[in-house]
Amino acid sequence: MVWFTEYQTENVGLTIRAKEVKTIKSKYQEIIVLDTQEFGKVLVLDGAIQTTEKDEFMYHEMLVHPALVKHPNPQRVLIIGGGDGGSVREALKHKTVEEVHLCEIDEEVIFVSEKYFPSISSKLRDPKVKIFIEDGNHFLEERKNYYDVIIMDSSDPIGPAEVLFQEKFYKKVKESLKENGIMVAQTESPFLQEEYFKNAVKEIKKVFKYVGIYTGFVPTYPAGMWSYTIASDDINVLENVNEEKLEEIETRYLDKELYKSLFAIPKFVKELVNE
Amino acid sequence: MVWFTEYQTENVGLTIRAKEVKTIKSKYQEIIVLDTQEFGKVLVLDGAIQTTEKDEFMYHEMLVHPALVKHPNPQRVLIIGGGDGGSVREALKHKTVEEVHLCEIDEEVIFVSEKYFPSISSKLRDPKVKIFIEDGNHFLEERKNYYDVIIMDSSDPIGPAEVLFQEKFYKKVKESLKENGIMVAQTESPFLQEEYFKNAVKEIKKVFKYVGIYTGFVPTYPAGMWSYTIASDDINVLENVNEEKLEEIETRYLDKELYKSLFAIPKFVKELVNE
Repeated sequence: MVWFTEYQTENVGLTIRAKEVKTIKSKYQEIIVLDTQEFGKVLVLDGAIQTTEKDEFMYHEMLVHPALVKHPNPQRVLIIGGGDGGSVREALKHKTVEEVHLCEIDEEVIFVSEKYFPSISSKLRDPKVKIFIEDGNHFLEERKNYYDVIIMDSSDPIGPAEVLFQEKFYKKVKESLKENGIMVAQTESPFLQEEYFKNAVKEIKKVFKYVGIYTGFVPTYPAGMWSYTIASDDINVLENVNEEKLEEIETRYLDKELYKSLFAIPKFVKELVNE
Repeated sequence: MVWFTEYQTENVGLTIRAKEVKTIKSKYQEIIVLDTQEFGKVLVLDGAIQTTEKDEFMYHEMLVHPALVKHPNPQRVLIIGGGDGGSVREALKHKTVEEVHLCEIDEEVIFVSEKYFPSISSKLRDPKVKIFIEDGNHFLEERKNYYDVIIMDSSDPIGPAEVLFQEKFYKKVKESLKENGIMVAQTESPFLQEEYFKNAVKEIKKVFKYVGIYTGFVPTYPAGMWSYTIASDDINVLENVNEEKLEEIETRYLDKELYKSLFAIPKFVKELVNE
């Protein structure tokens, strides 16, 4: 037994007991797989927990479904990052979806997920899925006016993912969306990563006409409190539409009732981005 | 600098860097006060974090305001536990409230809070407040049909607070409520303390006609995810009423919009208590 600690800031950490620890060095980062009692298998990239078998559904459902529900007819979906496959799995639950492109910079993450996280990576080889091992930033330049929904399932805005949180990048995302296109991004913790959160939202607001921020529980992420930002130039993402779509989808976190209250978030979080 | 770790279960802990640590032994428990960079002062009872200067508002607002808003005219309020004073402070924000009784078993908690947590304990000596150093269980027996709202601000259901989570106790709470009385209790984390949560809700449902469960973020509590159970025999607490009262109250977490969505909680949490 060993204890693995993620220092979420200089002054606070989440410490988890592990039965087994595997370390893999990829071209981009250090990948650790923990086998734990509490959370099942845990995927760690450069010291930061990305996903655990026990609570990944909370993150992946909240990241993926609101955008796919709000879009009137999502057919072609792009996921940037998300090599573990959880977002792909959720996106494929929507019957209108014909194609899911996954653009992941580090193919080792995909291999590790397929080997150690079968419940998360289960749909990566679905015939509707196409995997591109590429830098998300360059990838978009070749695909203008192409996607109905783009999902930013990135790691923290330090290291390889830093560029994915900047205005310049969100502009590319916008250009790659078709008419009625919707983007959604994970935008960090509004509590322990206040500055990352505020900055991501600020940059997204520079680019898109309609922007909505929502929060959700993810126990193994900093503060257990996560934020997501959904945006579009054509669709008012703040409107509460198509909720009946959620009846056709199997979920454990997001149901119709929670979806209808998506933007009912703690007051201090709203104040952080309305300053 | 030292690191303090709360082991939330055998297999997971929250670890916080502290500049200073004070330990006080009371008749009932070990009280620790940490001075930290991340959360300001932190109050720890028998190893479990009770409150921190930075995130206490999330817990205290969610525990106190929904019951006081739903009650048509709350005048006399009882808080059981809550020696830090945070719930007293919130209850006094409601203009109809004429009297707040605080029943805390361990007076040392009150002394410690008054010394180290001025922003939390600030209203403990308000003329409307009466402090009773007593066992909540016995206290209620002498006050039948007496309170408009009873708030269970207890520690975990191990040690001194165990009896406060049982049917027998909730029956006493009910007998001490006046007509239209409402009770609310903190009912632990639905993620890392699933059994405590399920059990508390089960016992409350045995006693009260109307029972509602809601959740909220508290970053320094297990999983960052907390539950509250509100109950009444006369008032349908699931109904969304009197929201305008929240306009008169200064809050940082709960606003009208969030209040209207109080029971829109993660699907898996609902399923835990509907089994």
